[in-house]
Amino acid sequence: MAPAQARDVRLRADAARNRQAIIDAARQLYGRRGLDAPLDEIARLARVGNATLYRHFPSRCALAAAVFADTLQRVIDAAGRALADPDPWHGFAAHVRFLCELQSTGRGVADLLITRVSGAPELEELRESAYASLVAIAARAQASGALRADFVPEDLALLLMANAGLVSRTAEAAPQAWRRFTDLALDGLRSAAATGAAPPPGRAAVQRAMRARGDDLGYS
Amino acid sequence: MAPAQARDVRLRADAARNRQAIIDAARQLYGRRGLDAPLDEIARLARVGNATLYRHFPSRCALAAAVFADTLQRVIDAAGRALADPDPWHGFAAHVRFLCELQSTGRGVADLLITRVSGAPELEELRESAYASLVAIAARAQASGALRADFVPEDLALLLMANAGLVSRTAEAAPQAWRRFTDLALDGLRSAAATGAAPPPGRAAVQRAMRARGDDLGYS
Repeated sequence: MAPAQARDVRLRADAARNRQAIIDAARQLYGRRGLDAPLDEIARLARVGNATLYRHFPSRCALAAAVFADTLQRVIDAAGRALADPDPWHGFAAHVRFLCELQSTGRGVADLLITRVSGAPELEELRESAYASLVAIAARAQASGALRADFVPEDLALLLMANAGLVSRTAEAAPQAWRRFTDLALDGLRSAAATGAAPPPGRAAVQRAMRARGDDLGYS
Repeated sequence: MAPAQARDVRLRADAARNRQAIIDAARQLYGRRGLDAPLDEIARLARVGNATLYRHFPSRCALAAAVFADTLQRVIDAAGRALADPDPWHGFAAHVRFLCELQSTGRGVADLLITRVSGAPELEELRESAYASLVAIAARAQASGALRADFVPEDLALLLMANAGLVSRTAEAAPQAWRRFTDLALDGLRSAAATGAAPPPGRAAVQRAMRARGDDLGYS
């Protein structure tokens, strides 16, 4: 290799290393602090300058996409497993538990599931796909008679918003609290339990709430 | 009145007016921003200087006590009504709805119910009293057979932590979402719905979580 080529290879290797260090640092800080973790703290933890972070990820949304795309892909994979479960209720309950457990792994991912990242269309496409699977999982569980007839997919968005609040308040002191909460909530979603309930918010209202949360956290 | 006396009366009236203006401003900002609303913004909204605020309320805890003591008293009063309800389940459900609705009225009060304010013993005494009533309300509903046998008072703390997360994420876009969520959660607490659940966190763990939240929000 000519010296200039060798230098290019080294520079590209450095860039790839920096990029990965930034993603790892972001994942760690999002987990501890939430999606609004300051970019300069992420750069510091990754041991890169702010300019380097900005060169790799020109916006908060771009960084969130790099950190969380595979997380949403895992959600979609889990949804596929839920749909393949021979017992529709069991598949539904397992998927709800999967989502709530995922939220318990970090404050960032807890919010990611119910926060619109407007500037990261690749994340929002994955979210749409995850949502479509969820609708199918719920429809199957309802058709089987096990999931209450008045359940709507927005109910799961409310549950995840609630669980995000719970995990952020219990992460250190009672890290298993989400399991108890999720089990009790699932019991409330069974047909056998249903006694009627206030009307759910519409999908548009839930989407507005998710967008507002994105705005709050700096992802508008 | 001698001029000096008249001046004293005027000064005392000014002080009382300032104190009330600070409390009103704090209530408003806690509602919008949460319990960690900055004191200097509260002073600005109340149109007083930081020194005046500090003279009336030497700590965040003292200010929170002035704002929220009557709120906790209302919780205790509501608990008394729940205990007087001839239908134990109805009393229990009404009290849970009362608490969740109270949380929906502002971010500060949403957190107050599940945040220890260590430096305000008067609030913590009221909280103890509210907790004792809750234990009695739940025991009565359990004895009637309507509330699931494995319910423990800590479950309600988890529900309120969850609802705090929900109301903070839906306040603008779906302000009635808490009603739907609370109804579904209550269905999950009925004996008829119970299918077994993960063990609840102990009371000590929930108290640690409430203290940690207080620390996070600046009330240690």
